[in-house]
Amino acid sequence: MSGRGHEEGLKDLTLLGNQNTKYAFNYAPEVLEAVDNLHSNRDYFVKFNCPEFTSLCPLTNQPDFATMYISYIPDKKIVESKSLKLYLFSFRNHGDFHEDCVNIIMNDLIKLLDCRYIEVWGKFTPRGGISIDPWCNYGRPGTKYEEMANYRLMNHDLNPEKIDNR
Amino acid sequence: MSGRGHEEGLKDLTLLGNQNTKYAFNYAPEVLEAVDNLHSNRDYFVKFNCPEFTSLCPLTNQPDFATMYISYIPDKKIVESKSLKLYLFSFRNHGDFHEDCVNIIMNDLIKLLDCRYIEVWGKFTPRGGISIDPWCNYGRPGTKYEEMANYRLMNHDLNPEKIDNR
Amino acid sequence: MSGRGHEEGLKDLTLLGNQNTKYAFNYAPEVLEAVDNLHSNRDYFVKFNCPEFTSLCPLTNQPDFATMYISYIPDKKIVESKSLKLYLFSFRNHGDFHEDCVNIIMNDLIKLLDCRYIEVWGKFTPRGGISIDPWCNYGRPGTKYEEMANYRLMNHDLNPEKIDNR
Amino acid sequence: MSGRGHEEGLKDLTLLGNQNTKYAFNYAPEVLEAVDNLHSNRDYFVKFNCPEFTSLCPLTNQPDFATMYISYIPDKKIVESKSLKLYLFSFRNHGDFHEDCVNIIMNDLIKLLDCRYIEVWGKFTPRGGISIDPWCNYGRPGTKYEEMANYRLMNHDLNPEKIDNR
Amino acid sequence: MSGRGHEEGLKDLTLLGNQNTKYAFNYAPEVLEAVDNLHSNRDYFVKFNCPEFTSLCPLTNQPDFATMYISYIPDKKIVESKSLKLYLFSFRNHGDFHEDCVNIIMNDLIKLLDCRYIEVWGKFTPRGGISIDPWCNYGRPGTKYEEMANYRLMNHDLNPEKIDNR
Amino acid sequence: MSGRGHEEGLKDLTLLGNQNTKYAFNYAPEVLEAVDNLHSNRDYFVKFNCPEFTSLCPLTNQPDFATMYISYIPDKKIVESKSLKLYLFSFRNHGDFHEDCVNIIMNDLIKLLDCRYIEVWGKFTPRGGISIDPWCNYGRPGTKYEEMANYRLMNHDLNPEKIDNR
Amino acid sequence: MSGRGHEEGLKDLTLLGNQNTKYAFNYAPEVLEAVDNLHSNRDYFVKFNCPEFTSLCPLTNQPDFATMYISYIPDKKIVESKSLKLYLFSFRNHGDFHEDCVNIIMNDLIKLLDCRYIEVWGKFTPRGGISIDPWCNYGRPGTKYEEMANYRLMNHDLNPEKIDNR
Amino acid sequence: MSGRGHEEGLKDLTLLGNQNTKYAFNYAPEVLEAVDNLHSNRDYFVKFNCPEFTSLCPLTNQPDFATMYISYIPDKKIVESKSLKLYLFSFRNHGDFHEDCVNIIMNDLIKLLDCRYIEVWGKFTPRGGISIDPWCNYGRPGTKYEEMANYRLMNHDLNPEKIDNR
Amino acid sequence: MSGRGHEEGLKDLTLLGNQNTKYAFNYAPEVLEAVDNLHSNRDYFVKFNCPEFTSLCPLTNQPDFATMYISYIPDKKIVESKSLKLYLFSFRNHGDFHEDCVNIIMNDLIKLLDCRYIEVWGKFTPRGGISIDPWCNYGRPGTKYEEMANYRLMNHDLNPEKIDNR
Amino acid sequence: MSGRGHEEGLKDLTLLGNQNTKYAFNYAPEVLEAVDNLHSNRDYFVKFNCPEFTSLCPLTNQPDFATMYISYIPDKKIVESKSLKLYLFSFRNHGDFHEDCVNIIMNDLIKLLDCRYIEVWGKFTPRGGISIDPWCNYGRPGTKYEEMANYRLMNHDLNPEKIDNR
Ligand SMILES: [Ca+2]
Ligand SMILES: [Ca+2]
Ligand SMILES: [Ca+2]
Ligand SMILES: [Ca+2]
Ligand SMILES: [Ca+2]
Ligand SMILES: [Ca+2]
Ligand SMILES: [Ca+2]
Ligand SMILES: [Ca+2]
Ligand SMILES: [Ca+2]
Ligand SMILES: [Ca+2]
Ligand SMILES: [Ca+2]
Ligand SMILES: [Ca+2]
Ligand SMILES: [Ca+2]
Ligand SMILES: [Ca+2]
Ligand SMILES: [Ca+2]
Ligand SMILES: [Ca+2]
Repeated sequence: MSGRGHEEGLKDLTLLGNQNTKYAFNYAPEVLEAVDNLHSNRDYFVKFNCPEFTSLCPLTNQPDFATMYISYIPDKKIVESKSLKLYLFSFRNHGDFHEDCVNIIMNDLIKLLDCRYIEVWGKFTPRGGISIDPWCNYGRPGTKYEEMANYRLMNHDLNPEKIDNR
Repeated sequence: MSGRGHEEGLKDLTLLGNQNTKYAFNYAPEVLEAVDNLHSNRDYFVKFNCPEFTSLCPLTNQPDFATMYISYIPDKKIVESKSLKLYLFSFRNHGDFHEDCVNIIMNDLIKLLDCRYIEVWGKFTPRGGISIDPWCNYGRPGTKYEEMANYRLMNHDLNPEKIDNR
Repeated sequence: MSGRGHEEGLKDLTLLGNQNTKYAFNYAPEVLEAVDNLHSNRDYFVKFNCPEFTSLCPLTNQPDFATMYISYIPDKKIVESKSLKLYLFSFRNHGDFHEDCVNIIMNDLIKLLDCRYIEVWGKFTPRGGISIDPWCNYGRPGTKYEEMANYRLMNHDLNPEKIDNR
Repeated sequence: MSGRGHEEGLKDLTLLGNQNTKYAFNYAPEVLEAVDNLHSNRDYFVKFNCPEFTSLCPLTNQPDFATMYISYIPDKKIVESKSLKLYLFSFRNHGDFHEDCVNIIMNDLIKLLDCRYIEVWGKFTPRGGISIDPWCNYGRPGTKYEEMANYRLMNHDLNPEKIDNR
Repeated sequence: MSGRGHEEGLKDLTLLGNQNTKYAFNYAPEVLEAVDNLHSNRDYFVKFNCPEFTSLCPLTNQPDFATMYISYIPDKKIVESKSLKLYLFSFRNHGDFHEDCVNIIMNDLIKLLDCRYIEVWGKFTPRGGISIDPWCNYGRPGTKYEEMANYRLMNHDLNPEKIDNR
Repeated sequence: MSGRGHEEGLKDLTLLGNQNTKYAFNYAPEVLEAVDNLHSNRDYFVKFNCPEFTSLCPLTNQPDFATMYISYIPDKKIVESKSLKLYLFSFRNHGDFHEDCVNIIMNDLIKLLDCRYIEVWGKFTPRGGISIDPWCNYGRPGTKYEEMANYRLMNHDLNPEKIDNR
Repeated sequence: MSGRGHEEGLKDLTLLGNQNTKYAFNYAPEVLEAVDNLHSNRDYFVKFNCPEFTSLCPLTNQPDFATMYISYIPDKKIVESKSLKLYLFSFRNHGDFHEDCVNIIMNDLIKLLDCRYIEVWGKFTPRGGISIDPWCNYGRPGTKYEEMANYRLMNHDLNPEKIDNR
Repeated sequence: MSGRGHEEGLKDLTLLGNQNTKYAFNYAPEVLEAVDNLHSNRDYFVKFNCPEFTSLCPLTNQPDFATMYISYIPDKKIVESKSLKLYLFSFRNHGDFHEDCVNIIMNDLIKLLDCRYIEVWGKFTPRGGISIDPWCNYGRPGTKYEEMANYRLMNHDLNPEKIDNR
Repeated sequence: MSGRGHEEGLKDLTLLGNQNTKYAFNYAPEVLEAVDNLHSNRDYFVKFNCPEFTSLCPLTNQPDFATMYISYIPDKKIVESKSLKLYLFSFRNHGDFHEDCVNIIMNDLIKLLDCRYIEVWGKFTPRGGISIDPWCNYGRPGTKYEEMANYRLMNHDLNPEKIDNR
Repeated sequence: MSGRGHEEGLKDLTLLGNQNTKYAFNYAPEVLEAVDNLHSNRDYFVKFNCPEFTSLCPLTNQPDFATMYISYIPDKKIVESKSLKLYLFSFRNHGDFHEDCVNIIMNDLIKLLDCRYIEVWGKFTPRGGISIDPWCNYGRPGTKYEEMANYRLMNHDLNPEKIDNR
């Protein structure tokens, strides 16, 4: 089989293809792993669609549910998707406001990847007839990606989706 | 449970998790409550999707129905969502034109939050075969958010949704 | 203009085209009005789609929202739609469980119309992540419409719609 | 060009391909025309989807709008579609209740075609937040098509479409 | 009931809540009425979704059908929606090309409201397999709204909707 | 407020409107509560749409996610929806196959309600490119509801929804 | 490569994999080819979705467009799909009414396959605002498939799709 | 009937309302006709949605099918839609690559109308599992419309539609 | 963790949770594995949605793609889903007609499970503008499930989905 | 037949219309072929929608599935679509990360076509509940197309599609 080989950042992966996966259900940013970006000569986007996010309300302990959309421009590293899965699962028994969850996820990925640009959008299911969709983004300070972050903030969600709670 | 604790702006909340909630059905902006924004170092958006808005026609007293989309960039405070629910419910016996409702909601949230940017879109059900969708926005005067408000006004609703009243 | 004239059950209507409409917001079955069915020689269906139903929770007083689907086979009378609108609006400050609302609406229409067959489906918005959709039906006892009611109960909702609360 | 020729019921058509078409806007059942059914050895369905129906409210004179779905099993004749278009346009200044319109259309087509089976479904746009969808059908009395009509009445609209007036 | 009162531009309305509404079916721009804009300190959009537009072909007299989307930024006045309904109904027996209808509607609303910005999009049903969707806009000459009109023209319909005539 | 009062089965409810709700995350059928069915003279359906179901894989401990559709004909009791929410949340740390979950939920509701008829459909998100949707039903043995269960089994899912894993 | 080999009815195919395909644009039923049905011990359905059907109006010569849905239970033979494509293309310059096209297609396939059961549904694009969808079916006379044809006729199109000509 | 009269560019039309329409099925740009633009004081868009386009593959002669979206800003002339229909029908027996068809159509309309701006998007059905959607545009050289063309090229199709070949 | 334990048919599973999974790409029915059905006292359905099926054309070797829908009523055994995934992957280099694939899959699952009832629907992507959707089913001979199979054949696909190849 | 002839870059094509097509299932960029661009005087887009992409995971060998969207502005050459199909099929047994596949495809097309601008978006099906959608683009260095690439990167995916893995 041709393609990406073990010499290209795969040899240090501990999770992908490992059968003894442990699922931590308390906030565990340490499970995140990265592999080499083979195309760092170029700006390009990687988007993760994550419809299986769940956390707890910090005041009532009631479960919350969301779809997380994570999109970023890598620099030297790309995040390995199985480790991202485990990281997101680790919010399962973690209590925080919706606004906090998206900011924390973005902060942890910036720390892991030192990526050029990143944005995170959480779309939660409603409580009391209202749903909350926080969105945050980041561009590496002092670079063109910081301007890009400002530009994308300014253009965020100009065509909001229709929501009827059904 | 890890996450946002009581020291972080939760201790003054009177509504979330309170079983003796009173539902006011006459315009009651005083029910709105805010909590600390833990990420004020960053510009980010919070959107509320509110498909359960109802008010009255000021001339005929007939009930009107809408979905309200409220989206803002917080500064020091974020609005607590249960208090937002109660505030929106307080329009239940309030009579005003559709155009007035969205402007009043935005004014009240600016007063509560002194937010950096906010926009409100009401999408009402039709009367006489025509539906009305007013949209207003605001950026803090004299800041880049004022320019952002102008920019988003100029780009508002360039891809209008299909409506057939069914 | 050709078509249905005043001699055909229209002369007693008090609501349609009347500008001084009063909106009662407490349960008012007496506002319902009927007109003559000009096609009683034939079984046919009339369906009302009513997406603007709202009532209150009997325990917490919190507003509930639903779309009501009402479908019936008339006998001598058909319900006048403006009076149906006023009747449904009269649940605005009425407190009852979802299961009760659909049964009460059906009972009141049977009383008004003595129709051959009727069914009512309420599809409510979620509370606590769960939405409730009660459905009831009725066929005039001792007639083929009673069998029809049994048959349609047995075949009810075999293809449930997809619900994701968004 | 191969296919249906003038000997097969086309020679008496007055409308199809005629440039001097007159559009009557008052109820004109006489414009309906039929051609020979070349497949009367077989039961088969023909459905017309007609989203451009408009009539007037008999009391207020206000325009109403509907999509008409007409479906039938022909016997000796099939209705020519341009004449059906003109017939439906002739309701433009005609005032009648929604329930009456569907019954009248079905009666006129039975008279024209003496078809084996027919059904008509009108789906109107809402007034006062409520839309009305009357449905009627007919099977030739004393034949298996009469049973078919009963069967299809009993199975009518078991999966009602979602309506939200937008 | 709190909210907009009679002192705020409602006292001169002749149509809303009036039972003796007359429906003119020949072009009648004089039926348009306006009320005070209570929020003229701010630029905001009002959109009307109008799926019940019908006119005639100027050459063949055949009825045409469209959904009109009208969106504007008010200055001192907002258009009263019942009068807009009556105005649009007045095209019922008016013959004009699709391109003309949208321009005429926009011209009449500019004359009524002297609004800051306005755009009108007509989406017609197909004839001969082709549907036509004209769109026009206007910004008050010599103001920033004129630039806005140019900008929105340049960005018009970059994501055209899928059309298959079904 | 009119409507269902405390004498009608509400006085024993421990959960609805109670602020000290505890969320059990291990299988807890004992949290289920019921109230009186005020319409037991009639067969009617109550459906719950529950898109927030999550459990664990019994072998790997990995979280699973599903939408549960629960539909039943009550006899003397109806299930209180807040207790149903808590019950479904109690699968959060429970490990079982998808096929087992739907059968267990149905068994527990039969035990609570002794309902006439019930069906449960779980629609899970995919693992390894395949999603699993188990469906079970039950009619009270020796009654017409047992036949109804057989009939609905035979007619189950004749129009399967389109799935593309996106 | 495992699977169906040349001994199983493939050796006589003249079209599949043949580069010198000729496209006849006048009705050419002779291009149809069949292969052995390897599962004739069992009743099963094969459906063809054919959105690229076009023919001509027999009176005006104007092109018509349709999607053909062909579904059948084979006996000894199944139709080879490339030959079906060529057959349907051969209507390109053929003039016939919509009702005739579906009946002719079904007749030709019955002649080719002597299948147990077959049905054909043509869904055409609108002319003059009306679209026509003829549907015919057939079960081998004197067998249970004839009853099946009657049953499916009786149950045909009980949930008609929404059509708005856009 | 009020509206556009014969003095306004209609008198030279040879096709609209003419019953003896000839359908050319070989490329015939000469059938295109134009009428006066009554609103040339203003920039506005006219869009044609054309789902009934068919041509031939230049190498294999196999029919191709597309929906053509044509959108332009007129100067002195607008294209008459019946002539556009005939022009597009004339590709029926014309062989060309998809990329060529959209460029040719645009060239012909520029020649006819000398319009200010125009764009053409062809969306073809798949061959071998791949569909091709060429898009071209044009702004009058040396004017602001040339810049507009560049701008719209740069912003073309930023939100591509989902395609699954079903 | 509560729930299904190793004593209940899990101990013999060789694939689920095993990291050394081998992917066979030539038809390998031997990879299928089953576990105990804990609810064999009851008839219930299990459906697998499998959008990642691919095989080869037996004549041209070209890849084909389909979504497989597999639905069955288990008896003593249920199929383990990871083994089903591997089995379906094993068609990757297998050449067979669409009609053969669905029959082979069903035969193999009957052999593995001796299930009470099963049906398989393959929905393939188009070749030459036509897509093929074969559907087969089976009920255990001599039982009520055989009648069920006949019944579901007779009611198969009465509401075919819309296909436009895009 | 009029249209593109053999003198216009077709004579060197080896694949289109060739019956002896070989399908390579290991990465084979050499199968790509190009034809002359007849419209190189103009910038225009060509988009390929490719829902039948499949490759292997480089670590586990498990098949992956994606829809590839490829859009480019040609210079002297356009890619011939049958050769593109064969090229994409050649990833069938190739192992690489999703992020690598899109970059490799883009690199190969740049090498073949020396196009002015190109972008590639891969939308994969989920593994472990998460799907990955990498997107890359390129503008010819030192030209306006390089700026265009930056601009389109900055505006990429501002309206992400809704994903729920079903
Ligand atoms: Ca809620
Ligand atoms: Ca929704
Ligand atoms: Ca209305
Ligand atoms: Ca709609
Ligand atoms: Ca909720
Ligand atoms: Ca939804
Ligand atoms: Ca709707
Ligand atoms: Ca459509
Ligand atoms: Ca998965
Ligand atoms: Ca999907
Ligand atoms: Ca038409
Ligand atoms: Ca449509
Ligand atoms: Ca194809
Ligand atoms: Ca699609
Ligand atoms: Ca499609
Ligand atoms: Ca989806």
